[in-house]
Amino acid sequence: LKATSSADHQRSTTASSWRLDTAQIQAPQGYLASAAAAGIKKEGRLDVGLLYSIRPSVAAARFTTNTVKAAPVKLSQRHLEESGGEIQAIIVNSGNANACTGEDGMAIAKSMAALAGRIVGVPPTQVLVCSTGVIGVPLPFEKIDRKSGDLQGSMSVQGIDSVSKAILTTDTVPKICTADKSFGNVPVRISGMTKGAGMIHPRMATTLAFVLTDALITRSLLEEALKEACEKSYNRITVDGDTSTNDTLAVIANGASGASVIEQKDEAYQDFLDGLTQVCQSLAQQIVRDGEGASKFVEITVEGADSEEGAAQIGRSIANSLLVKTALAGEDANWGRILCAAGYSGIPFDPDRVEIKIGDLVVCKRGTVAFFNEADAKQILRQRDIRIALNLHAGSSSATLWTCDLTKEYIHINADYRT
Amino acid sequence: LKATSSADHQRSTTASSWRLDTAQIQAPQGYLASAAAAGIKKEGRLDVGLLYSIRPSVAAARFTTNTVKAAPVKLSQRHLEESGGEIQAIIVNSGNANACTGEDGMAIAKSMAALAGRIVGVPPTQVLVCSTGVIGVPLPFEKIDRKSGDLQGSMSVQGIDSVSKAILTTDTVPKICTADKSFGNVPVRISGMTKGAGMIHPRMATTLAFVLTDALITRSLLEEALKEACEKSYNRITVDGDTSTNDTLAVIANGASGASVIEQKDEAYQDFLDGLTQVCQSLAQQIVRDGEGASKFVEITVEGADSEEGAAQIGRSIANSLLVKTALAGEDANWGRILCAAGYSGIPFDPDRVEIKIGDLVVCKRGTVAFFNEADAKQILRQRDIRIALNLHAGSSSATLWTCDLTKEYIHINADYRT
Repeated sequence: LKATSSADHQRSTTASSWRLDTAQIQAPQGYLASAAAAGIKKEGRLDVGLLYSIRPSVAAARFTTNTVKAAPVKLSQRHLEESGGEIQAIIVNSGNANACTGEDGMAIAKSMAALAGRIVGVPPTQVLVCSTGVIGVPLPFEKIDRKSGDLQGSMSVQGIDSVSKAILTTDTVPKICTADKSFGNVPVRISGMTKGAGMIHPRMATTLAFVLTDALITRSLLEEALKEACEKSYNRITVDGDTSTNDTLAVIANGASGASVIEQKDEAYQDFLDGLTQVCQSLAQQIVRDGEGASKFVEITVEGADSEEGAAQIGRSIANSLLVKTALAGEDANWGRILCAAGYSGIPFDPDRVEIKIGDLVVCKRGTVAFFNEADAKQILRQRDIRIALNLHAGSSSATLWTCDLTKEYIHINADYRT
Repeated sequence: LKATSSADHQRSTTASSWRLDTAQIQAPQGYLASAAAAGIKKEGRLDVGLLYSIRPSVAAARFTTNTVKAAPVKLSQRHLEESGGEIQAIIVNSGNANACTGEDGMAIAKSMAALAGRIVGVPPTQVLVCSTGVIGVPLPFEKIDRKSGDLQGSMSVQGIDSVSKAILTTDTVPKICTADKSFGNVPVRISGMTKGAGMIHPRMATTLAFVLTDALITRSLLEEALKEACEKSYNRITVDGDTSTNDTLAVIANGASGASVIEQKDEAYQDFLDGLTQVCQSLAQQIVRDGEGASKFVEITVEGADSEEGAAQIGRSIANSLLVKTALAGEDANWGRILCAAGYSGIPFDPDRVEIKIGDLVVCKRGTVAFFNEADAKQILRQRDIRIALNLHAGSSSATLWTCDLTKEYIHINADYRT
């Protein structure tokens, strides 16, 4: 599933002049990083990472909306508040979510912040802590502690690449994006990494994602930009409809590029927002491409809606339908399931006006069958990248979401993950 | 998956004296029925059925909440209204849902009502029409029409058993229930049949269900009783979270038993409601037991909640979680996924007070691991019938839901259903 999506294609031909590289991650100016194999995951794989801005920075983050929040999520929320957003480091581990672990779990999250703070020389309150992996199992902090020398000794500009590997769990590939653009004559970079292949559901920042930039921007505008970028990227993907206890999407901006500060909603802000959105969309789409057991990457666009919010909700309903996802796995042009899933989205519309296209093939017109050629449909559905468009013919708003098919491999992966 | 559920056991030991028989369906007094193999389904299987009360009757029904409603659903809603609830017959076909079929589909639904009306000698407006099967394909009415002689000629008391087979689609077994109880010295019967194994989701009358009774009850009380029974049965089950376009749960009461009319909320009404609820719960549970690909029947009880509605919503969230359902398929005591799914239900609660039991084994206490014996958990999860109880320790309300596990067989069935 490595092909470029149609959305990526669209992006690269729009007015924006951000250059996106999803083959490698390169650090923006003023960042160091390191990773280690602490033995939380099996087989000596990297499982602890540290990201560090050598300059004072501002940060913003979106967290899970789950009532059950992991200890590191609660601690990171507190640190963002206590530091006034002046975050300089992120410590992360995979293989254990430190969720549903009670008071001991919170003590361990605090120890992780203290450890990171000692290594890079900042107060613990300027550190975000993130964990991902199995829920409800005590996190063996001593294994991380034992690696503090390694983490300190190997801090480097190149270390960011190792961190992008250390955050993975059931992922089969790292998910990375480096975006470059000149602001005037000053090169600015936004670099992002993310993880996740299951327990992915829209409507919140999903799983872990870290975005670093050397742009200079005020905390309030950074928060606003992240919220908007998240809405159009992480909140528009789904793999299995499950919302994790640990979701965190964090961005740090350190101004090391030397570009002018962004302090109002001017052209530079729009450029920055555009770059941040593109990086978040690329990362989010990479998650769906690597969705547990996925064999198809599916872009769903709902058009002709009364509102973007309504279009997105209908799209989510389709993107989460097990019957739509299994039909896609079976390469079956079962448009009735698509219309059925739209129908229970909770958003009212007139079914008799709906048109549905799979690829460029109209399969449903005015709410009923368009008598298409099944062989044509089969040809489209045989591809790895599939576009579905549903037009409500009601208004002028639209929304695009990304999902994957549901295969037997998903069951295999999840029927025996913990043991 | 034929074992009796613990809920059934509980039922049979409560005060109620309804005798439930789920091994066979017997008609209440005053009902005739017939079925035929019209060739809509493959292999000469029964696919058309007709249910008929020989006396004037009252009926009530619950329909899908999907915005996209099949033609027979829209027509049946109209007939219930136009006839003032005086429904005497139901005609049903499987193999084709007559959904998303435009004006032609509505014309065909009307033809089916007219055909049934001619056969049993009532106006078409006193007929309910139901269809189930593939969406978006024109229903070949001529095949049903050709069988009108057979349907008329074979009308009998025993025919109800054939109809319970004619409504099946991906079901592997008929789903039936006969409940008997004496009202004073007058024997009263409630007999129900249902179908469905996929596209099953709570919060509405799900799939097709027909309940016939020879009790005598006013239309308004019958409607009220059906609403309440539906809430505690069909609205408490899920297989895959998809809400069909054709869901119909209809009950007909013809008074042929000779029992006194139920016209107020007295003891007789409570007895009737109790019987109706038990029949609906039995039918709904039989659907879950036969859930597509299911290897486990899972009863989820949420206790200690502030409200029954909140408890039910948390239960639904757990019952629909792909990660919970795949863990059950893998016989993995992954209680973290249960707590996580409760957390994104939208109902607030204090995670630190939650206790979770799998069978009688406490696996989570005060929101964190209870350090149980994995071998004990494995022993419980190896069974076909599994009980999960989540106690919020907040209030005194509770709700019980029924779901099944998610296996590779579900994917197999649904990846290639249409073609």
